[in-house]
Amino acid sequence: MTNLEPIASHRLHDGWQRQYKHQSAVLNCTMQFSVYLPPQAEHQALPVLYWLSGLTCTDENFSQKSAAQRAAAEHGIILVIPDTSPRGDDVADDDAYDLGKGAGFYLNATQAPWSAHYRMADYVVEELPALITQAFNTNGRASISGHSMGGHGALTLAIKHPQNYCSVSAFAPIVSPTTCPWGQKAFNAYLGDDQAQWADFDACLLLKKHGLKLPVKIDQGLADNFLDSQQLTKPFEQQCQQQQVAADIQYHDGYDHSYYFISSFIDAHIAFHAQALHKPG
Amino acid sequence: MTNLEPIASHRLHDGWQRQYKHQSAVLNCTMQFSVYLPPQAEHQALPVLYWLSGLTCTDENFSQKSAAQRAAAEHGIILVIPDTSPRGDDVADDDAYDLGKGAGFYLNATQAPWSAHYRMADYVVEELPALITQAFNTNGRASISGHSMGGHGALTLAIKHPQNYCSVSAFAPIVSPTTCPWGQKAFNAYLGDDQAQWADFDACLLLKKHGLKLPVKIDQGLADNFLDSQQLTKPFEQQCQQQQVAADIQYHDGYDHSYYFISSFIDAHIAFHAQALHKPG
Repeated sequence: MTNLEPIASHRLHDGWQRQYKHQSAVLNCTMQFSVYLPPQAEHQALPVLYWLSGLTCTDENFSQKSAAQRAAAEHGIILVIPDTSPRGDDVADDDAYDLGKGAGFYLNATQAPWSAHYRMADYVVEELPALITQAFNTNGRASISGHSMGGHGALTLAIKHPQNYCSVSAFAPIVSPTTCPWGQKAFNAYLGDDQAQWADFDACLLLKKHGLKLPVKIDQGLADNFLDSQQLTKPFEQQCQQQQVAADIQYHDGYDHSYYFISSFIDAHIAFHAQALHKPG
Repeated sequence: MTNLEPIASHRLHDGWQRQYKHQSAVLNCTMQFSVYLPPQAEHQALPVLYWLSGLTCTDENFSQKSAAQRAAAEHGIILVIPDTSPRGDDVADDDAYDLGKGAGFYLNATQAPWSAHYRMADYVVEELPALITQAFNTNGRASISGHSMGGHGALTLAIKHPQNYCSVSAFAPIVSPTTCPWGQKAFNAYLGDDQAQWADFDACLLLKKHGLKLPVKIDQGLADNFLDSQQLTKPFEQQCQQQQVAADIQYHDGYDHSYYFISSFIDAHIAFHAQALHKPG
């Protein structure tokens, strides 16, 4: 028995867009997440694509604005969309949009007051997949994707846990958080000044250390206001080149950091993951 | 020269999602609307699909949640998405969600205090199309669609102005506002007790009076909480049958009144309008 409590359910592309809450032992709070169950889920075990959202988001932004479900229905993939941080009145927070609630950075905090709840890495890699496996008819295969802070989450977690995923993709990911303002601020608060900890949640440094054999796809808008200032995509591309890691990294004229960018390319990402998730064997 | 002031612009499916404001003479206030310009708009005069949103919406809900732009890009159709009422501090309002701002009902109010600004019928049929024609490279062909209150708007305006449109469609439209709570409340406020005025903004009564020769497509969810209580779709279907008006009206198990319902069927609506809009001659 899972402790999932249904919040909402909407028919969508012949499947179901659903929202649940549950008590998270890892995060020590009540969490909310969304799931899209494609029509095939009624009679078939399916693979899962985990989607990690960016700063300020909940599970609802991607659910409502990405238009991902049409392609997920076409390819028979369950989408799982967690929140971006622990939540609740007793969870530490900050007035800024880029620290605290809505800004969990998919890491495990070691510093007070954050360490009491902020363990999004363990939540996304361990607790949530266990819950999903228990509650839904999955086939044991999973991939991971995300946007911005969520792209950082997808890349770092996939590099550290390649056995858990068949493929990884990202939209405008923060790839070098140890050298950009968003990452430095968050890591300083959540991880203190231990640089070894910082390196353990930096996609470029992790890639250098561990390499990556999974299929990788990244899309990046060239009109993205954060492209240079927040170290999006480019340093990771350089690191891939240095280590001869094959990655499909594309830049797009005129596209910005918004969900309009995500919805323009989400079909291609779903198709990319479908190829890895449905591969025989 | 138009008085359009750009507010936002996002690259989307190789076209542009844009938001403008302008001073409306008809509504006597500053209005905001959104436009999707598909990639073909850069070198070709294109037809326009007007989308009328439902209660509480602005131009942003459909823009962000419908996923309509992918099909609009595929078919080369400009989307124009007006707001649902006049706006501004000096515009009359009501605390309820179903009267005043966000609830213009696409009619011309005759009663104080509403009559000073609430003339959404004239705005959608006359002022906005004139502005669009002036500002964008359109080919003179237009269709109209909408959801709920906006479905009521699309049907009533198409029946009264068939020469302006090539086709009309609706999602879960209010088709008999003179006999349902939403419509009666709004018409009583905006139009007073003049039943002739009421009849002039009721899709079923208008169809009975004028008939309709345009292609018509309506989709309706059967899990829609408002289906029976607000007289959605069904009375119009009966009226079509009585007058032998050909209309493609489909009911869908499990679908509710949300944007998830719209996004599930919007591709089919865009394709339906494309057929009428791109017809030779």
